[in-house]
Amino acid sequence: METIHAGLIGFGNIGSGTVKLLRENGGLIEKRLGARIVIKKIADLDLKTPRPVAVDRKMLTRDAKAIFNDPEISIVIELVGGYEPAKSFILEAIRQGKHVVTANKALLATYGDEIFKAAEERGVNIGFEASVGGTIPVIKTLRESLAANRVRSIFSILNGTTNYILTKMSDEGKNYKTVLREAQSLGFAEADPTFDVEGIDTAHKLGIVLSLSYGKRVNLADIYREGITGVSQQDIEFAKELGYKIKLLAIAIQRGDAIEARIHPTMIPFDHLLASVNSNYNALHIRGDASGPVFLYGQGSGMMPTASAVVADLIDIARDIQKGVSRRVPSRSLSEGGIEEIDLMPMDEIVTNYYFRFSALDRPGVLSKISGILGKHNISIASVIQKGRAPDKAGSVPVVMTTHESREKDMRAALKEIDRLAVLKGKTVRIRIEDDRLK
Amino acid sequence: METIHAGLIGFGNIGSGTVKLLRENGGLIEKRLGARIVIKKIADLDLKTPRPVAVDRKMLTRDAKAIFNDPEISIVIELVGGYEPAKSFILEAIRQGKHVVTANKALLATYGDEIFKAAEERGVNIGFEASVGGTIPVIKTLRESLAANRVRSIFSILNGTTNYILTKMSDEGKNYKTVLREAQSLGFAEADPTFDVEGIDTAHKLGIVLSLSYGKRVNLADIYREGITGVSQQDIEFAKELGYKIKLLAIAIQRGDAIEARIHPTMIPFDHLLASVNSNYNALHIRGDASGPVFLYGQGSGMMPTASAVVADLIDIARDIQKGVSRRVPSRSLSEGGIEEIDLMPMDEIVTNYYFRFSALDRPGVLSKISGILGKHNISIASVIQKGRAPDKAGSVPVVMTTHESREKDMRAALKEIDRLAVLKGKTVRIRIEDDRLK
Repeated sequence: METIHAGLIGFGNIGSGTVKLLRENGGLIEKRLGARIVIKKIADLDLKTPRPVAVDRKMLTRDAKAIFNDPEISIVIELVGGYEPAKSFILEAIRQGKHVVTANKALLATYGDEIFKAAEERGVNIGFEASVGGTIPVIKTLRESLAANRVRSIFSILNGTTNYILTKMSDEGKNYKTVLREAQSLGFAEADPTFDVEGIDTAHKLGIVLSLSYGKRVNLADIYREGITGVSQQDIEFAKELGYKIKLLAIAIQRGDAIEARIHPTMIPFDHLLASVNSNYNALHIRGDASGPVFLYGQGSGMMPTASAVVADLIDIARDIQKGVSRRVPSRSLSEGGIEEIDLMPMDEIVTNYYFRFSALDRPGVLSKISGILGKHNISIASVIQKGRAPDKAGSVPVVMTTHESREKDMRAALKEIDRLAVLKGKTVRIRIEDDRLK
Repeated sequence: METIHAGLIGFGNIGSGTVKLLRENGGLIEKRLGARIVIKKIADLDLKTPRPVAVDRKMLTRDAKAIFNDPEISIVIELVGGYEPAKSFILEAIRQGKHVVTANKALLATYGDEIFKAAEERGVNIGFEASVGGTIPVIKTLRESLAANRVRSIFSILNGTTNYILTKMSDEGKNYKTVLREAQSLGFAEADPTFDVEGIDTAHKLGIVLSLSYGKRVNLADIYREGITGVSQQDIEFAKELGYKIKLLAIAIQRGDAIEARIHPTMIPFDHLLASVNSNYNALHIRGDASGPVFLYGQGSGMMPTASAVVADLIDIARDIQKGVSRRVPSRSLSEGGIEEIDLMPMDEIVTNYYFRFSALDRPGVLSKISGILGKHNISIASVIQKGRAPDKAGSVPVVMTTHESREKDMRAALKEIDRLAVLKGKTVRIRIEDDRLK
């Protein structure tokens, strides 16, 4: 039986899971593949911290060069994370004609052009199934299973930490800060949670998804991004009353030749599959023009779920090696020369439904003033909730409205005008409402 | 640009969709594949009925031999359906060294061994993504994305017709016969619905899924199968009250060295993703040992969704042809010699929760008699619903119970004894309750 040798750089959580999985299910994988995948060397700067798997000390090295220079190693697994030295490691592996498997979404989203081009020129594969949606077969589904489709839209939950926080806020009635602290103590959120809660990690993943779905290169900074730090318990409760859950969605929509890409807290109807995605799970609701809606769901992170995707990539590449071929499928669905740079649709132009929560003084005529301004800006009201309740400390009561489809530009102009009204205290909260089943 | 020629046998609904999709998205597919896929010939006995796509009459033939004998054609698409002549067509295509794409689950479930063995020996690919779950990437996910996993369990909805009927019954409060008639008039159910409503179609698909997941060959007749004809509106209402939906589930569970496989109406909790699968959609909740739960959902049938899967297979095979290889992935996850025949776990041995609806005379002591017999057979009661309501024509009132985990054998013995009680009118209804998130 043929043995295919891999070298692992980065012996952390996912790296340990990869070693563990190849060991525990090695026999099964051999039977399925007809070959043996062996991790021959592991490079990490920290060789002292105990790992969840025991490995022969002779496999370990502090020098990644030991992997690049080993002619027997045909696949390099990069699980260091971050930009450098991960990028240099990957480029060096490619230069040495080795295939690469990586889970590094930040790197691929930012330096993907350089890395994918180098791989194409050198004729090696880049496996990155683990970079988006953890264990969920996102890359394979978009690149292979839906290859006959024009992707009309993708509505997705791509970050487990924020989904965990929003789920806890919704289920337990706790506020953002309390849940964040709990998530941090459980290891579900980083000490500095910015990357997750501001939607930056989600943007990296959406960037990768966009390039696969549309063959387009996007500037990450052009993706509209709004995190979850402003989501309040009060809005979660009003959302429930209106039949919605609030989720941080990564949205891509094809609009003729343009593409809309945005990340923001979103109200979605209870009976939408995405509303049932709880805790730290990820999911994608993809609409192909032929396939119709396809929904994929699973663990977006975690040692073994992510290792499952890493080893799937190893097996995929091993099948190519066995057949003496490579790059059977282009890294990003098209040959790199075919991937065009595009401008995303300006946020002002998008059309959606809105939820507004006004903090109004409890005086006659407030509703008429607000609705008058909305009407002037072509925003038509779908529902209103105003309850007789005691004013808060600032003397205001919440007035909630949802709108029919309106243009973002009009919404901004209207809120600017409304927020100047003397009867309003504090800035109006607005959350977009979406239901891609209707589009 | 290379042109890869295919021949289509069976110019019906899915065949027309395949031609349409290759035409409408041909430019996109060329860009993704770097080659052109052209359907060169179409064979069908009926060349007169108008089709949703117009094709050059010169492409059409009544003789499938015209396709087998064309050396330029490298892929044969079989969309005739049924056992013969579909089986002979596929075997002849294989004999001629042509790759095959088919959506024929009945054929593959019944004669898969012969067909897959012939393809392996001749070194050609069999694409059958469209045979299970329509547009959903079931085959690719089980065979490739989850290749590093031992599949612990699969809970799935694999038949659109029965799911459509159960959804309508639940949403609109109509009885089985009324909804079946509506489904038939809308074309969602056949004039003779046996194949769907008795779970035979589901069994074919589960058979394919079992061979891919476990590398095991099963005798279809050994799969326990119970259709939906006995599901009553009354049980749907009680299910709602208990927090469940009734779905026809195809279930596979690994139990040590044995496998449990069964198809029956099942109560699943409202908040389970499978409970949100409505209308004619299909879905699979798969548990890999490393991946954890993975949920896949989409259209299980229909012209364009199924064509999307057929063309995905064409593209997959075309990639092999471009690289000059074949059979990069074994048809059923393992080489055919490695696929073992197994006996499924006897139904008597399974353990699950049950819902019982007893038709009892409204007399003192009934509950005590029933629960006494259940207790004697080691069945412990989880909940009871007995309402003061007017007896039906037979003079009986419904008494509903759910149980803790119990053995099927004990359940059968207990019901046999209970149904002999003089205070019971009519046979007790029992529906299994499942929640694979807990297992």
